[in-house]
Amino acid sequence: MSQVDVFINQTAEWLRAAGPDSDIVVSSRLRLARNISGFPFLQKMSVPQQQEVVEKVKVATETCVGLKEAYYLRSTDLSELDRQFLVERHLISREHATEGGSKAVAITPDEVVSLMILEEDHLRLQTFQSGFSLGEAWKIIDVIDNELEAELDFSFNPNLGYLTACPTNVGTGLRASCMLHLPSLVLTKQVHKVLQALTKLNFAARGLYGEGTQATGNFFQFSNQITLGQREEEMIDNLERVIRQVIAHEKEARQFLRSKRKVKFEDQIWRAVGTLKSSRIISSSEATQLLSLVELGIDMDLVKSSLTQQEWSGLFLLIQPAHLQKINKKKLNSSERDICRADLIRERLKKITL
Amino acid sequence: MSQVDVFINQTAEWLRAAGPDSDIVVSSRLRLARNISGFPFLQKMSVPQQQEVVEKVKVATETCVGLKEAYYLRSTDLSELDRQFLVERHLISREHATEGGSKAVAITPDEVVSLMILEEDHLRLQTFQSGFSLGEAWKIIDVIDNELEAELDFSFNPNLGYLTACPTNVGTGLRASCMLHLPSLVLTKQVHKVLQALTKLNFAARGLYGEGTQATGNFFQFSNQITLGQREEEMIDNLERVIRQVIAHEKEARQFLRSKRKVKFEDQIWRAVGTLKSSRIISSSEATQLLSLVELGIDMDLVKSSLTQQEWSGLFLLIQPAHLQKINKKKLNSSERDICRADLIRERLKKITL
Repeated sequence: MSQVDVFINQTAEWLRAAGPDSDIVVSSRLRLARNISGFPFLQKMSVPQQQEVVEKVKVATETCVGLKEAYYLRSTDLSELDRQFLVERHLISREHATEGGSKAVAITPDEVVSLMILEEDHLRLQTFQSGFSLGEAWKIIDVIDNELEAELDFSFNPNLGYLTACPTNVGTGLRASCMLHLPSLVLTKQVHKVLQALTKLNFAARGLYGEGTQATGNFFQFSNQITLGQREEEMIDNLERVIRQVIAHEKEARQFLRSKRKVKFEDQIWRAVGTLKSSRIISSSEATQLLSLVELGIDMDLVKSSLTQQEWSGLFLLIQPAHLQKINKKKLNSSERDICRADLIRERLKKITL
Repeated sequence: MSQVDVFINQTAEWLRAAGPDSDIVVSSRLRLARNISGFPFLQKMSVPQQQEVVEKVKVATETCVGLKEAYYLRSTDLSELDRQFLVERHLISREHATEGGSKAVAITPDEVVSLMILEEDHLRLQTFQSGFSLGEAWKIIDVIDNELEAELDFSFNPNLGYLTACPTNVGTGLRASCMLHLPSLVLTKQVHKVLQALTKLNFAARGLYGEGTQATGNFFQFSNQITLGQREEEMIDNLERVIRQVIAHEKEARQFLRSKRKVKFEDQIWRAVGTLKSSRIISSSEATQLLSLVELGIDMDLVKSSLTQQEWSGLFLLIQPAHLQKINKKKLNSSERDICRADLIRERLKKITL
């Protein structure tokens, strides 16, 4: 039994699909990059310095109201599987999971806040809110950031703002992003147009698992690219405005599918249900893609499901490699996972009728 | 109500899937090409001569024991849809259905014998037997051929044998063929090797609907290419020997799938079931392909179906364009058919459980 197993039976906040516009905006995320004065950036840090930072931050979190309930997990306490599990829950980054050295992460029991220690920067603080709730996420992260700053001396330059390991994060150190589910824009082949327009406006679009990952299952993560020369609230407002436009496009596309392409659309949704309910071997990317279509069908009242929202959203996580291995309580290679995944999905989808 | 509608609720002999080795050899077919002395070949024939032949053969069939129960259908009595319907039941050829001029076809009520009048030759007599029964088919066709020859003076040359419009049919005028269902050779990617070997031995392989058609749904029609210099029984023996080898290969491939590729194989079969039970739009080629996989699953006891053999075999025919229009009692364009086909399959496949 690992410490991270406490999370397995709950739906990660970023996937909970509650909150405003949660049929399109799965979740909102903010992160702040901070570094502690008196220590070099991670790349130049000695191992004893790393250990010192890990323990220093541990002490800081204990006096911090927003983090004192958090699990403080040192990377040495975590198996490779545990780390992969946390990556799948978006609680640590792939880099944090795989790079060596002394590291840690603090995670609140509700998975709303996680604080990575010694990722690219000394501190990477993130908050998730289900649905389209950047404002709510900002309230939470701002409080914790202030609490941490009261305990730790952050590297700050009056002209530049917060100093960070990578110049693209200098200033506010803020990145705001929203995870959007855009199946109708994909089905109507409009999504590339939307992505191009956003890139021109300096917003980045990424896949389900962050930088460098492909958009899987029609999930797209949109974030601001500029951290310098804007106040935090202004940045968040800009992202919100853009996301609202994307939501409107996706809604239009859903209406178009319902009114102009009804039979073809129902065919695609029902084939997805049929394949998920019958396959014996399925990859995580195919499963995510098909679950995405079924989710669209549920959102549009075409598919009747007696799964709770939590059971449903949870499926997207449970089919991921580390989650599958945790549930099955054993190491599984890729072929074994494809079989276990198909079994799990067939079992859960009994609550969806053809 | 058209005369051909009498056939709609029965399973065509060529698809009935009874008889020896019928899990692999769907049916056996023999056809004889004959021409009547004193008339030019079809291409040189005037319309009055065509009409004369149509009526002359009509009279001959009436005194012929094997054909006196047959429906004698003149092409002018048949709508385009009726002719397409007969093509789908393999009772007339596509050429006979679409080329103009005076034509006719005699069909026994059990669809075992059909006699096309004025196809490429004046007479094309064919018999179907379900399963691997070339010998049985030969007994039937030989009797009728002799009966017809007693009434009609066939063009015959003592050196060459029966004369035919195309030199490839001169001699016996016989073509023997078997329709084989070879899903396992396709799944194990061995089918091309088998087809190549057969071609070298002067056997032709064709699709579900004869010359020039692609193999659909893993159905392959194998026939002899040589009509000259061999006695009929010898030709049939040669084909039988080759077919027996193909049957053995398919059986081996089925065993291989069952023992060495079990999960992957079950995945393919069950995905086919899932798609057929859920799609809202499906083309006839996709449907045939998927039904073929489910048939394999039934043959191998992987799929439990409470459909009768007749209900099941009938599906392959009922999803064809003309059959769909006959059942729905209206003209349907291609998109409408794709929807009706999916509806029909979903309805029928309720008797198959996931």
